[in-house]
Amino acid sequence: MFKPDRLCAFSDGVVAIAITLLVLGLEVPSVHKVPEQQLRDYILGSLHPLLGFVCSFVLIGVYWLQHYAIFHYITHVDRVLVAINGLFLLCVSFVPFPTGLQAAYRDDELAMVIYGGAQMACSFSLLALWVYATRNHRLVARNVSPKVIRNMTTQITLTALISATAIATSFISLTACRAIFLAIPVLQLSRHTTDSEWSEANGKQHDSEA
Amino acid sequence: MFKPDRLCAFSDGVVAIAITLLVLGLEVPSVHKVPEQQLRDYILGSLHPLLGFVCSFVLIGVYWLQHYAIFHYITHVDRVLVAINGLFLLCVSFVPFPTGLQAAYRDDELAMVIYGGAQMACSFSLLALWVYATRNHRLVARNVSPKVIRNMTTQITLTALISATAIATSFISLTACRAIFLAIPVLQLSRHTTDSEWSEANGKQHDSEA
Amino acid sequence: MFKPDRLCAFSDGVVAIAITLLVLGLEVPSVHKVPEQQLRDYILGSLHPLLGFVCSFVLIGVYWLQHYAIFHYITHVDRVLVAINGLFLLCVSFVPFPTGLQAAYRDDELAMVIYGGAQMACSFSLLALWVYATRNHRLVARNVSPKVIRNMTTQITLTALISATAIATSFISLTACRAIFLAIPVLQLSRHTTDSEWSEANGKQHDSEA
Amino acid sequence: MFKPDRLCAFSDGVVAIAITLLVLGLEVPSVHKVPEQQLRDYILGSLHPLLGFVCSFVLIGVYWLQHYAIFHYITHVDRVLVAINGLFLLCVSFVPFPTGLQAAYRDDELAMVIYGGAQMACSFSLLALWVYATRNHRLVARNVSPKVIRNMTTQITLTALISATAIATSFISLTACRAIFLAIPVLQLSRHTTDSEWSEANGKQHDSEA
Repeated sequence: MFKPDRLCAFSDGVVAIAITLLVLGLEVPSVHKVPEQQLRDYILGSLHPLLGFVCSFVLIGVYWLQHYAIFHYITHVDRVLVAINGLFLLCVSFVPFPTGLQAAYRDDELAMVIYGGAQMACSFSLLALWVYATRNHRLVARNVSPKVIRNMTTQITLTALISATAIATSFISLTACRAIFLAIPVLQLSRHTTDSEWSEANGKQHDSEA
Repeated sequence: MFKPDRLCAFSDGVVAIAITLLVLGLEVPSVHKVPEQQLRDYILGSLHPLLGFVCSFVLIGVYWLQHYAIFHYITHVDRVLVAINGLFLLCVSFVPFPTGLQAAYRDDELAMVIYGGAQMACSFSLLALWVYATRNHRLVARNVSPKVIRNMTTQITLTALISATAIATSFISLTACRAIFLAIPVLQLSRHTTDSEWSEANGKQHDSEA
Repeated sequence: MFKPDRLCAFSDGVVAIAITLLVLGLEVPSVHKVPEQQLRDYILGSLHPLLGFVCSFVLIGVYWLQHYAIFHYITHVDRVLVAINGLFLLCVSFVPFPTGLQAAYRDDELAMVIYGGAQMACSFSLLALWVYATRNHRLVARNVSPKVIRNMTTQITLTALISATAIATSFISLTACRAIFLAIPVLQLSRHTTDSEWSEANGKQHDSEA
Repeated sequence: MFKPDRLCAFSDGVVAIAITLLVLGLEVPSVHKVPEQQLRDYILGSLHPLLGFVCSFVLIGVYWLQHYAIFHYITHVDRVLVAINGLFLLCVSFVPFPTGLQAAYRDDELAMVIYGGAQMACSFSLLALWVYATRNHRLVARNVSPKVIRNMTTQITLTALISATAIATSFISLTACRAIFLAIPVLQLSRHTTDSEWSEANGKQHDSEA
């Protein structure tokens, strides 16, 4: 049976690279020519791709956290899980492309639909990972409670639904569409979802936070 | 004696980077100019490199799985194995170049021959790794059964043969040639090869899959 | 409770990639055209981005060391720490962009202000990590002495102050501004800060250095 | 005292990324334009950067092996070692730049001098690492034999000398200069150096190689 450890480490590597490659989408003028634009104008022209960089960075960060949480419960790995995990990595490593497209075609709703579609594909592949692994406790320990399984399923599904809502909104307002994606990290880091999972998984350890 | 652990981790790093760098082959128009093409036309022009991206991603993923399986059995490492492993990493990290060539020269069969040749080089270096390590149980545990060794040899050889077939087909039809590469992940993830290996290697553990 | 291990490994990955991507800011002429400039002129034109490459490399290296030291003390991780750590990774992976800008707009003080601002953001996110984790020993062991906490706080704050001083100096002299950043690695590697921390943390182990 | 483990892992990450980024030096024509050259001509024009890619890949691979061997003996880490290790990583991550220069300015001996200089810098930083760590057994175990220390010193010095010889030869013949670099991997993988080290370090373990 495949050990999850090396699969996790490989996945972490791919996600870490994809999240860092996003910065290459921020163009820099050539050093060997006199720049065509004043720096002030250049930066104003870079604000939009900068927003896209931050947004994609945060979203990939959220997927990493969810992937982390999923593999926290998975105890062994089979052929199908490896394939679904590969699909997830394919989607995440693809994200820099739609991020670049929506920066270049900033007033085109098709660009936002493609961007949102890529985000939904990430979420759906994570959802498939989780549902496949937990159906009949296939690849998780017997003692993982149904509540934990349900909570995580809800959280990943909500992430996908937010992307879907953002796509739908893009036909009305591109600004509103972009704002909606912000709900994903807010949801991920809100108290009720994350903390309940982590404490559920580890018992009532010392939580010096409240 | 060299520990396989750090060699594995380094190899994983190189493969993870190579697989993620593929996305840089998907060009994005500059943010600081009005794009020359409509987005719809731009995407149509990107479909072909997109297919190449997915294909190379999946193939490198398969090589990683085979590399993973090979090092599952290897217990120690010598100078020759390090050299062959380096050759494998060289081939894998080279893949983005022929991937880009076949996207730019999409109607040129020479581009497909080079692409297929790079894939064959990956497979042959993996085959060399495996044959070198298992000849007289040189670098694997004594109790690895001849059946496991034969199965793995067959699987890697088949992968190389599929690439060879794809190259040969490129002289007849480039579309057929591309379709043939798809047989590689299908073969890798089919029940009879992967599962028999993994269960062979780990005894008859709980397999809640069927 | 989130284990710090995988968060550390992921952070290391992102920082290692960001530090290595800096080299892509050093442009190379196309191989497929006769170069426009003589090599000697080309290299003279590359000296400035080269300095920026070395400076950003060293600064990111210092942040990595500080991140390493911080996580040396952290025993568990909560939702807020994950968010602050994400902010740190965002800042670090952003550094190649201002590095490129200050190379292209080398006589523009705004470029240095942005560059210094990015460096300050890295330092402040590290400071936030440390203060959040150590406030009431929230995420560190009870036996971490107040002196260690104070020392580390001082060191990270000093790093941020040096960046602030460099920014202020950029309005007087860009050369002086650049020289001031050099104080950051010098401070980090000076005896009194680093060594006291490390020996504090590990007891009086054999120190065959003096 | 700093643990070598995480420093090793970080260094591996940087080296793995630098070695894989080399492929980005192999240019690919844009997908969205009809290529200017026939594929055959394009590939002929790519042969020279291809050679540079393979050469730099192999050399960085050798430095990684030497770094691996050095850290095999190092038991703890101090402030100075961290600084020298940082210098080594800076040199390695810089290699793609001179690799690109010598590909673009292929008939210019200055380009080869810079290329060779970068290789020598890598070797000298490794030599500094080793000499600093082993002087009076500062950072290695007491029982590391003087013979092991001497052997490794010789090997790293030889690598640096080969680079120096290649630089000197570049003034006579650029082809001869390039051929000389090939002596580095041959030396590294020859029986007398590597194997003696590894078996020395691990006792006379089963060596089913002869």
